[in-house]
Amino acid sequence: MTPTPPVPRPDALPGAGAAAAAGAAVGTVSTGSTGDPHSDRYAARTAGMTASEIRALFAVASRPEVVSLAGGMPNLAALPLDSLAREVGGLIAAEGQSALQYGSAQGVPVLREQIGEVMAFEAGSTSATGGFAPDDVVVTVGSQSALDMLTRLFVDPGDVVLAESPSYVGALGSFAAYQAEVRHVAMDDDGLVPAALEEALQRLAAEGRRAKFLYTVPNFHNPVGVSLAAERRPEIVETCRRHGVLIVEDNPYGLLGFDGQTYPSLRSLDPDNVVYLGSFSKIFASGLRVGWALAPHGIKDKLVLAAESATLCPPAFTQLVVSRYLATHDWRSLVKSFREMYRERCDAMLGALEVHLPEGCRWTRPRGGFFVWATVPEGVDTRAMLPRAITARVAYASGTGFHADGSGARHMRLSFCYPPPERITEGVRRLAGVLEGELEVLRTFGLSGPGARPTAGPPGPQAPAVDTA
Amino acid sequence: MTPTPPVPRPDALPGAGAAAAAGAAVGTVSTGSTGDPHSDRYAARTAGMTASEIRALFAVASRPEVVSLAGGMPNLAALPLDSLAREVGGLIAAEGQSALQYGSAQGVPVLREQIGEVMAFEAGSTSATGGFAPDDVVVTVGSQSALDMLTRLFVDPGDVVLAESPSYVGALGSFAAYQAEVRHVAMDDDGLVPAALEEALQRLAAEGRRAKFLYTVPNFHNPVGVSLAAERRPEIVETCRRHGVLIVEDNPYGLLGFDGQTYPSLRSLDPDNVVYLGSFSKIFASGLRVGWALAPHGIKDKLVLAAESATLCPPAFTQLVVSRYLATHDWRSLVKSFREMYRERCDAMLGALEVHLPEGCRWTRPRGGFFVWATVPEGVDTRAMLPRAITARVAYASGTGFHADGSGARHMRLSFCYPPPERITEGVRRLAGVLEGELEVLRTFGLSGPGARPTAGPPGPQAPAVDTA
Repeated sequence: MTPTPPVPRPDALPGAGAAAAAGAAVGTVSTGSTGDPHSDRYAARTAGMTASEIRALFAVASRPEVVSLAGGMPNLAALPLDSLAREVGGLIAAEGQSALQYGSAQGVPVLREQIGEVMAFEAGSTSATGGFAPDDVVVTVGSQSALDMLTRLFVDPGDVVLAESPSYVGALGSFAAYQAEVRHVAMDDDGLVPAALEEALQRLAAEGRRAKFLYTVPNFHNPVGVSLAAERRPEIVETCRRHGVLIVEDNPYGLLGFDGQTYPSLRSLDPDNVVYLGSFSKIFASGLRVGWALAPHGIKDKLVLAAESATLCPPAFTQLVVSRYLATHDWRSLVKSFREMYRERCDAMLGALEVHLPEGCRWTRPRGGFFVWATVPEGVDTRAMLPRAITARVAYASGTGFHADGSGARHMRLSFCYPPPERITEGVRRLAGVLEGELEVLRTFGLSGPGARPTAGPPGPQAPAVDTA
Repeated sequence: MTPTPPVPRPDALPGAGAAAAAGAAVGTVSTGSTGDPHSDRYAARTAGMTASEIRALFAVASRPEVVSLAGGMPNLAALPLDSLAREVGGLIAAEGQSALQYGSAQGVPVLREQIGEVMAFEAGSTSATGGFAPDDVVVTVGSQSALDMLTRLFVDPGDVVLAESPSYVGALGSFAAYQAEVRHVAMDDDGLVPAALEEALQRLAAEGRRAKFLYTVPNFHNPVGVSLAAERRPEIVETCRRHGVLIVEDNPYGLLGFDGQTYPSLRSLDPDNVVYLGSFSKIFASGLRVGWALAPHGIKDKLVLAAESATLCPPAFTQLVVSRYLATHDWRSLVKSFREMYRERCDAMLGALEVHLPEGCRWTRPRGGFFVWATVPEGVDTRAMLPRAITARVAYASGTGFHADGSGARHMRLSFCYPPPERITEGVRRLAGVLEGELEVLRTFGLSGPGARPTAGPPGPQAPAVDTA
């Protein structure tokens, strides 16, 4: 195996300090722990919590001259900031004494009520949510926090978690932090493949093991962009029930179907065996970090206990800001304008991919959400290619971040959520140029010839960089 | 052992739903897990995450007719809500696109800069903080989140954590959630006793074990109210260094010394071996959940990784609200008005205790912070007495919640932070009546006579209720 190419460190590059502002929610963390006098004191689980090299690249990718197709930041341009400013000011002036005070660990009651309306809109009707009671909701610090707490509740070191292949990078980060063994289950254009799920579960049973839960993003999947076909849903749910495996249904993009299409929740098919995760990050404001879990009673009780340990309580203030927004704005119309904006950007990306990408590339054609998943010709390693792409002023997320074992180097996630359409087109044009260059090298020297570019090894037991939900 | 008396459940009592509004950040979680079909799936660590009975009582204690001396809610009456509303409105209108967007996992840079000013005010000078660099700060969702993440980073199941006897209930909750073995170290009126710390460490060494860290609240301690004497500090720090034990210094009340006295941080005595935790909950607004850790580099890097798993990033919005407040308000003067308010309340409590409490009771005399720690005569069990106190319309926190092993039944924490002085006086009067009743029963029937009240058994391996920091 050839060595991993050197990766620029964020603190060694100009402009890296602006990482957070542009492409991704990344810190300025160095990847090494050289010289840490505390290194012999850490818990075993920290072995799965090392920083990804991708993180460093995101920092560079945030420079303004780079078109970032890497991050997952929602575009907030359509938010009515002036009226929101008035409402939040009014909230502080009128209810500041409670809005700025500790609240319930389960979440503010008024918001838990309103989440029922959001879920009904999201699933098409209240019955399509699987039934709703505010007492079954736990408000969390983004749905990342719900994911982290669920993993805390269910996963002992070495326990198995099932996830789509590929899966959301932030979920894989939490699974690694709790020392889960992730088994990926194949997807196709109709989402998770039921036969692959059955096979994975039978293999586990043959090993005398059971998965603790299946983590799935059924609608407008991150990173693939596809949705789970309606006819597959009952089979997925039934298979999990039969094998005694809980389902964690993560649905941050459910309201962002370009044609306004909605999907009944998996939860509606088996409310006692599904924990549903929702988020206001993509339909209102990610910087408030307000998400929720709707869970069977016993799990909900334990989530509240986990929340007390994690944060005492989620911020009452951000919850009341969301509540006030829902109560005073035509949020359903705003969601429609968001989805039209994302459709336009997706169209720009798909059009540019068609025009510019070299032969032998494939990609998904999303009907909602934020992401296109592209596959490159054999021999191209998207992880190894990323520094060269950034030099050409375009960034993407290598497929390796979306697999627990670091595979996926022939894939990349291309985000169309944040840059405007003309920048997306330009970014894809640049990306195509980089790919042409890679293919030229391959044609000249062959897959393993003397001049072949070094390919990245598997990243090993490290958490992928969280580049935002 | 006699059985534990029945404890009212919050959902079985009128008015319990208002729990969050009055006395404590508690959910409405039932204590049992009867009938949970997922009960065979949970991780081993959940055994330490059961709800305390005290939680249910807090819900009842939140009824308006009850004087709650139980919670730890700061009093926000002095906050300038109108000007704050204007500033936050201005923040949204002018910077909403970034304030409402994902941010850095390490925290917003401008706030990390400002935290240096707060710490210098808190410790008396910048040098008394141990030196400050914004890059060493990680902003967290309240300092509870910092505590939880530090425990995640350092504690494998069965690892030892040292904590004062008694210790903060929320810290004990996090330690239990990560299956730490807590060893309490004795305190007296001058705080943690150095000889007791040395003895605990030698005993561990004799067992071939090492504590992962010492958790301490050196200033205006929760729940005891005392501060670590200046002359003890170098010895405590040196002892920990010699034994290879990290110090976690939690300082939420450091600015609330009634006479404006401040303490140089423990960190200033050994910056490489101390993680300092700070919070805006007591000096600005608890409902924003903004705290911070100032940590040695290696630990800081790992905290950022833990934060990505826990929440992706702390809310940018709440951090910018704090930043705006610090930049536009005379926050130092407001802190002074807070501490004067708390001094007045503390004086009311100490005066009432002197007048009303029966002979044989002792209590601490805080010079800052939120809490008095009272000790009752032998034979009185504050945990068993609590339902009767609430019937008499006064609530307190039994000492049992502040010990990992559920001991401490002869103690109670009395909070003077939230009720106005006349309510505090009335609450202490009621409490004295309840205590007189207990002593009367003891005098009549003896400590173990036939008519003795049932006493509560140790709560076993359960996390104490988090009743707010």
